[in-house]
Amino acid sequence: MATSINARKENPPEFVIGMDLGATRIRLGAFQPDGALISSLEGEIRAEEGPDAGLERIASLVENLLHQAELDRRCLLGIGIGSTGPVDSRRGLLVNPGTMPGWLNVPIVAHLQDRFHTPVCLENDADAAALGEYWQGVGHPTQAGIPPVRRLYAITVGTGIGTAFILDGQVVRGADGFHPEGGHQIVDPSGPECYCGGRGCWESLCSGSAIGRMGRSALKAAPEAGTALLKLAGGEVDRIDARLVCKAARQGDPLSRGVIEQAAKAFALGVFNILMLFFPEVIVLSGGVMHSSDLFMPALNEMQHAASAYLPIERVHILPARLGYYAGVYGAAYALLQAIHHPQLEIQPPF
Amino acid sequence: MATSINARKENPPEFVIGMDLGATRIRLGAFQPDGALISSLEGEIRAEEGPDAGLERIASLVENLLHQAELDRRCLLGIGIGSTGPVDSRRGLLVNPGTMPGWLNVPIVAHLQDRFHTPVCLENDADAAALGEYWQGVGHPTQAGIPPVRRLYAITVGTGIGTAFILDGQVVRGADGFHPEGGHQIVDPSGPECYCGGRGCWESLCSGSAIGRMGRSALKAAPEAGTALLKLAGGEVDRIDARLVCKAARQGDPLSRGVIEQAAKAFALGVFNILMLFFPEVIVLSGGVMHSSDLFMPALNEMQHAASAYLPIERVHILPARLGYYAGVYGAAYALLQAIHHPQLEIQPPF
Repeated sequence: MATSINARKENPPEFVIGMDLGATRIRLGAFQPDGALISSLEGEIRAEEGPDAGLERIASLVENLLHQAELDRRCLLGIGIGSTGPVDSRRGLLVNPGTMPGWLNVPIVAHLQDRFHTPVCLENDADAAALGEYWQGVGHPTQAGIPPVRRLYAITVGTGIGTAFILDGQVVRGADGFHPEGGHQIVDPSGPECYCGGRGCWESLCSGSAIGRMGRSALKAAPEAGTALLKLAGGEVDRIDARLVCKAARQGDPLSRGVIEQAAKAFALGVFNILMLFFPEVIVLSGGVMHSSDLFMPALNEMQHAASAYLPIERVHILPARLGYYAGVYGAAYALLQAIHHPQLEIQPPF
Repeated sequence: MATSINARKENPPEFVIGMDLGATRIRLGAFQPDGALISSLEGEIRAEEGPDAGLERIASLVENLLHQAELDRRCLLGIGIGSTGPVDSRRGLLVNPGTMPGWLNVPIVAHLQDRFHTPVCLENDADAAALGEYWQGVGHPTQAGIPPVRRLYAITVGTGIGTAFILDGQVVRGADGFHPEGGHQIVDPSGPECYCGGRGCWESLCSGSAIGRMGRSALKAAPEAGTALLKLAGGEVDRIDARLVCKAARQGDPLSRGVIEQAAKAFALGVFNILMLFFPEVIVLSGGVMHSSDLFMPALNEMQHAASAYLPIERVHILPARLGYYAGVYGAAYALLQAIHHPQLEIQPPF
């Protein structure tokens, strides 16, 4: 008995940390291995201050989480990271100069491994969100009304748009382990130029950045139509972002409703293409902008109706993420647990 | 010894039949189980005469093949069909009223099973072409210069455009076994209406039908630019099809070159989207129009160059099918062999 109690004292509960690294925000969660959330926190990444300061800030946030939840770091199973793309999962590098200037080949995995002496793995944010929803969200076996999910396609709309395809619980990757970048599918070749070099990419038309940009330029062109939006922005056009545009649209601001309608049409085009190219049982919508997914549903419903002329569209469920902003945090933790428990998986963290 | 010879006499070599069913042509091949082609033939489907006459014509072609190659029908392992989509593989039905008017829920599998007393399976034509290239074409281990192919994406451009994704040798299907229809991804929302109900679908812009239509209307608008094309069509505008447009373009006919250039740009957009959404090691181009894939390569190269700003595009090989028109015939045979030898596969022929 004494031995057993001592053993328990020496072995406080194990936990895993999941981290969602966006171009603007970072979210962390500590989880029990069964998926129960122990504690979470979030902070700003301030990517524009460069990768050195950013990595330090990330490590401090991990320290804060350990401290806040009074977690014993000896029981840390590892840290899973889901990051805004592209990432090089195999080599543990952030490769994202597009939305995080200067963040090219940043060795985040090695940095956190050295700092916390624990396994660390890196996934694309959309893969992480998809895995999270598969693990504890819409794909969880307890979810009613959805047949068993073999093919789950996740769309993460934040600063950019990330996509992920989960087949039988595994991330479907691209050549050499690279992550496909569905946010850069072209849905309108007459659309605006994107930083990727393309024109009319999906994310140039309806990502959070795009919606913010559309809101700002619409307001400059016709200020009288967006009084509610301008008020929400405290009178400063430059403070307008996607969140405020969604909020103002919900209040009935005509300009904001027009912007959302336009963005939703473009969003529906990309979802239509994903339907045609993958035809999955479930499409999950996550990320900051999809916190307002209800605003996008009329366009999506119209698109589904059009597609139903050709494919049995009733077999596809388009659903908001159940885990909300924290889908990626859950999924990053799940990815780490998978990497520990299924070493045969294609992408292995370098530990 | 005598027994052995007798046994051999009683067991002449086994073979399998692969069939590629297009909206206009049907091709058949008899194969040894190791992939060696024994004999082949082709004929017209004349889909417009309706499914009853069509099924009878298909069965006659099978008879002709057996006769032509002096094959013993007792050694027929089965018949694999790859058909222009959509098909219902699970139920063995052709569901293709779009390009084959009247062909809705046509029970081709049951028909051929009853007629030839042999297993029959049905695949989408693009799946079949993809499996064929995987089995005996660009994915074959003896092919030099290509790293091991885990992800093969096939694009079949014929009357329509079919797509297929092979992951580790298996067809990746959609919900309920349905086949995704990548040919209906939207690449230009300002494009022409498609029979599927969409606007600016990929296949409405660069399929064989689209190229023929574009050639005919361009010639009506500016006959002086297409004299070579008109000559190839024997002076009859209505005889112009994609094959003639490609042929005239190769001869330098300015109108035909313009049509191909426009179609190739649209084609490259769709391939770009597939790159972004799948990022496979190999993209294989097959089908009648891609018999002229060299005419489409300049636009594809330009697209790849643009995409290289964002993804390591050098890891993706875009290649014409090695099996040419017969990729689908090979793959249909392979699908039948797989169905016999791997009964755990998701889609089983109903035998």
